[in-house]
Amino acid sequence: MPEDAPFDPIAEARRQWNSHWGRSATPSMGAVTSIMRVEQILTARLNDLLKPWDLTFPRYEALMLLYYSRRGALPLGKMGERLQIHPTSVTNTIDGLQKLGYVARTQHEQDRRKWLASILPEGREVAELATEVLNRERFATAPLRKQDLDTVYEVLRAFRHAADG
Amino acid sequence: MPEDAPFDPIAEARRQWNSHWGRSATPSMGAVTSIMRVEQILTARLNDLLKPWDLTFPRYEALMLLYYSRRGALPLGKMGERLQIHPTSVTNTIDGLQKLGYVARTQHEQDRRKWLASILPEGREVAELATEVLNRERFATAPLRKQDLDTVYEVLRAFRHAADG
Repeated sequence: MPEDAPFDPIAEARRQWNSHWGRSATPSMGAVTSIMRVEQILTARLNDLLKPWDLTFPRYEALMLLYYSRRGALPLGKMGERLQIHPTSVTNTIDGLQKLGYVARTQHEQDRRKWLASILPEGREVAELATEVLNRERFATAPLRKQDLDTVYEVLRAFRHAADG
Repeated sequence: MPEDAPFDPIAEARRQWNSHWGRSATPSMGAVTSIMRVEQILTARLNDLLKPWDLTFPRYEALMLLYYSRRGALPLGKMGERLQIHPTSVTNTIDGLQKLGYVARTQHEQDRRKWLASILPEGREVAELATEVLNRERFATAPLRKQDLDTVYEVLRAFRHAADG
C-alpha cells in the first residue's frame, strides 16, 4: 500500500476474515459491508443535492412514483408495495411531502377507509427540478462509469428478484 | 416479461427514465436505486440472523472492531472513523452494546475527557457465535456467488476510495 493511500477498513476486515475464519465467507462479508458503506455515502450525497427542496431520497422516490402514476394519485398501501417499504414509513414520507405542499392526502372515493396521496402542481414542478439536478449529477455516483453502474445493476437485480419473487 | 414474473419497480423506473429523460442518467439511477433496495433487504435479513444476541448489523460491526483491536479497547472517536459513522451513532451503538453486557465504557487513562469502549468476555463469545452464523449464511447474500460478490466489491471499492480518499 503506498504511504499516502487512505486506510481501508473493509480491505482490513477482508484480511482478518481470510486469516481467522477461512476464505469462504470473505467475498460475502466484503460485498455486504461495501454495500452498507456505499449506501451511507450515496444517501448523504443525494440528501445534499435534494436539500433545496427539503427532500430526502425516500421522499424523492415517493414523489416520483406519484409523478409517474396515471392519475397523479395512488393509495398509500400501493405506494408501500411499489417502494418496498413499511406502511409506517409510507405514512411518514407522505406526511413530510404534505407539510411541504407537494402532495395532498384524500380519502378514497369508493372505500373511505383507504387513503390516497395525490401530487400537487408544486410537487410536480419540484419533481422535475430535482430530477434535472440528480440526472445532471448522475445520482451522485461519480467516479463510476456506465459499464460499472450497469454491472452493479445486473448483479443486484438477480439478488432482488430472488428476494422479492 | 413472463406472466408469473413479479413486477420490478426499478426496471419500470429505468423504462420511464429512458423515455422521459434521455438514456444518459438511467444507469446511475438504476444502480443507486438497486443499492438502496438491496441494503434494505440485507439489513432485514442480517438483523434476523443476529436477533438471538439482540445485535443489529451496526452493533455487530462495532463489536467486531473491538474484537479485532489489539487491546480489545478503542476510543469512541477512533471507532467512528473506522466504522465511518457519526459520533452520535457511535455513542448510541456503544450504549446498546453496554446494556447487553457485551462492552464496557471507561475513561481514557491519559486523557480523561476521552471515552474508551472495551469488549467484555461475554461480548467476545457473542462476537464469535454471531460470526459463525453470518459466515455459514454467507452474510445473507444468497443466491449471489463468489464471482458476483467479488465484482460488487471491486466496483464499489473504486467508489469508496474516491469518496473517502
